[in-house]
Amino acid sequence: MTSHVIRQVRVTPIAFRDPPLLNAAGIHEPWALRAIIEIETASGLVGINETYGDLSMLQALAKASPALNGLSPWALSDMEARVAALVRPAAAASEFLGTHVSLAPGTHVSKTVAKVTSAFEVAMMDLQGQLANAPVVDLLGGASRDRVPFSAYLFYKYATHIDAPSSSGYPVDPWGEALTSAQLVTQAQRMIDAYGFKSIKLKAGALAPDDEAEHLLALAKAFPGTPLRIDPNANWSVETSLRIVEKLRGVLEYYEDPAPGLEGMAAVANASDVPLATNMVVTDFAEFRRNADMGCPVKIVLSDHHYWGGLRATQRLSTLCSTFDLGLSMHSNSHLGISLVAMTHLCASVPLLTYACDTHYPWQDDEVIEGGRLAFDEGSLRVPMGPGLGVTLDREALARLHDNYLSCGIRARDDLGQMKKYDPSFTGVQPRY
Amino acid sequence: MTSHVIRQVRVTPIAFRDPPLLNAAGIHEPWALRAIIEIETASGLVGINETYGDLSMLQALAKASPALNGLSPWALSDMEARVAALVRPAAAASEFLGTHVSLAPGTHVSKTVAKVTSAFEVAMMDLQGQLANAPVVDLLGGASRDRVPFSAYLFYKYATHIDAPSSSGYPVDPWGEALTSAQLVTQAQRMIDAYGFKSIKLKAGALAPDDEAEHLLALAKAFPGTPLRIDPNANWSVETSLRIVEKLRGVLEYYEDPAPGLEGMAAVANASDVPLATNMVVTDFAEFRRNADMGCPVKIVLSDHHYWGGLRATQRLSTLCSTFDLGLSMHSNSHLGISLVAMTHLCASVPLLTYACDTHYPWQDDEVIEGGRLAFDEGSLRVPMGPGLGVTLDREALARLHDNYLSCGIRARDDLGQMKKYDPSFTGVQPRY
Repeated sequence: MTSHVIRQVRVTPIAFRDPPLLNAAGIHEPWALRAIIEIETASGLVGINETYGDLSMLQALAKASPALNGLSPWALSDMEARVAALVRPAAAASEFLGTHVSLAPGTHVSKTVAKVTSAFEVAMMDLQGQLANAPVVDLLGGASRDRVPFSAYLFYKYATHIDAPSSSGYPVDPWGEALTSAQLVTQAQRMIDAYGFKSIKLKAGALAPDDEAEHLLALAKAFPGTPLRIDPNANWSVETSLRIVEKLRGVLEYYEDPAPGLEGMAAVANASDVPLATNMVVTDFAEFRRNADMGCPVKIVLSDHHYWGGLRATQRLSTLCSTFDLGLSMHSNSHLGISLVAMTHLCASVPLLTYACDTHYPWQDDEVIEGGRLAFDEGSLRVPMGPGLGVTLDREALARLHDNYLSCGIRARDDLGQMKKYDPSFTGVQPRY
Repeated sequence: MTSHVIRQVRVTPIAFRDPPLLNAAGIHEPWALRAIIEIETASGLVGINETYGDLSMLQALAKASPALNGLSPWALSDMEARVAALVRPAAAASEFLGTHVSLAPGTHVSKTVAKVTSAFEVAMMDLQGQLANAPVVDLLGGASRDRVPFSAYLFYKYATHIDAPSSSGYPVDPWGEALTSAQLVTQAQRMIDAYGFKSIKLKAGALAPDDEAEHLLALAKAFPGTPLRIDPNANWSVETSLRIVEKLRGVLEYYEDPAPGLEGMAAVANASDVPLATNMVVTDFAEFRRNADMGCPVKIVLSDHHYWGGLRATQRLSTLCSTFDLGLSMHSNSHLGISLVAMTHLCASVPLLTYACDTHYPWQDDEVIEGGRLAFDEGSLRVPMGPGLGVTLDREALARLHDNYLSCGIRARDDLGQMKKYDPSFTGVQPRY
């Protein structure tokens, strides 16, 4: 009898071009990192996934991978227990703290287990789908919707990277500079024309807050009736947050992470009636409880299966959100199609998806799956209904993106260090405004 | 291509012998009701389940069954949405309130949806397991344990039913009367000898509280080191609850539903350090939140997939319990092997199973699955590892048990009405003590 137990885990770090996008922490480097997971069974099936590619994550994945040897692809609980046993003690000894992490060690340790668990879970569910001849969304309870809506994710940006490796043929991105109202409106129009998005999110916290508010009002004027969001990534004081939200009265769908910390968010919530969303202060179940214990100042959790522990953990989060009358949507980092497809399966399965999801996908121009870039229809993605995730690795692309990784020299995302190249006085101290 | 969509739902009400067990509401009737669900696909696969058999439940199942026509066995979310759409409006019009329900209508409506959803979910997961060639526990994320512990569930009881239908050959049960310490110790010993249980629960609230406390102390003396629980089903005042818990100091593993209402439980929790467990005041997600908002006076949720919305909903409940530092175990009603096996798959999949589960199984002597009665080993059940639930219907037994249903005359459980036959002055007003 053919055995479907897991016999090998391959982790391939990759790098792909990323535009010079501004945010509260600094600016994106020319290359974004991810890791591609392949889990192979003795019978020769391969389940795939995409996750973080920073060195600390690669180390954690390497440390945890032996745990999967001999496991059934169905054994997710066992996998999680084994991962926790392997990764937790090491992480407690600071092995995986990385170089730029500002979270408390305890929080970070729990995130490492959740991140590694998620990385393996999705690839194992891709295998399960192949074994059961069912798409991942069916393994998650079936679809609540056949397409998942995403939003136009606008960024302030420079026209080119300060250190664009032009010798290697690194192209100038087609988006151009975006630092003014007119440029942002152009960026939004271009993104909406290409993808059909029905809502707009502005990554803020980069320029002066009153300028950013003015830009958002320009977007409101240019796209009347389109739901708008602004996300300063906790780079504003409570006072600034309240001044700006007043300027944006009647315009915001939700207000994402204006001020630092749950206490800062609570202070904003107490003095404003715009619902607060977060991917910064409710990022795990312990923080969910803290928010609940404080009477839920945060009303919308922007989840992300990559760090919440996986697709099933995020479904469970959705039940917590329902129970406490919170909304749910999804956060994103720079990513390619496997992450996008996993997110689409997840979001199709979750009845409670209150708002269109974030995605950085329009900012990437490369792809690691066969068939190339995924196509949006009216701002939404259809759920692939083939077995498992329904997408397969393009091995030529994987090799090329891995070569990028080997040659780009970046081993951990460092938006702050990158910004110092533009402005040596930039400290990244937050809240800046 | 063979189609695995659902084409038929069969619901067969059954009745099986039940001993004259005493509780706060009254006494068990000679027959306990259940319903056996069969969901058949166009391809001829049959998924099975067991649930409540009261008339109101049968009506709800009948009303909801057409929702499944043409659905994939994987489409659990769709099924739930369809069931809610069909059952909720009717229930709101009191159609399914039954004759003896003391819950508020709003609560009851939500329970009906959850109960019907659960009834169908388990049978659909039995089908999924057959399609995927995987046991239900694997569809739930795989096993966290290979066996699930249960407890010895003691009852006060009379020797025979007042209206035992002896003409139809209804046998006298072998357990005898249990109204004294000596009789209870005998009952416990007999049950432990037969099943190997490692913990003991006493269903209380039937006799005078101080007598019940004395009996529990006798059990503690007879079974030193064995974890003990007592469950008066909210039939004691706060004052009585506190007086009794003081008598039981050092003996109780947990204190189950001593006083009525979450407020009553909170009053007991405030004045006692024994953890409180419930299957009465945290019975759905809204009540979970209410307990959390009150600072969690209840520390252990005794769940039951039959009314929490299914196996997956109960897994989600386990995440809520972890998040709020609550323990989790399982409640039971009179049931046969399909319910027991579904519970075993569920409990094997839940890492957080804090205490051995309740089961009425030793009080039944009949069975509806092939192979007959399930065998316990040292108080635990092994998870069946065949496809789906891993058990199949004994159709001869099903026909016989359905005949029982047709002839027994009972259409809704009525412990109160039954007790009035013994004691016409019995009112069932609670708390009695």
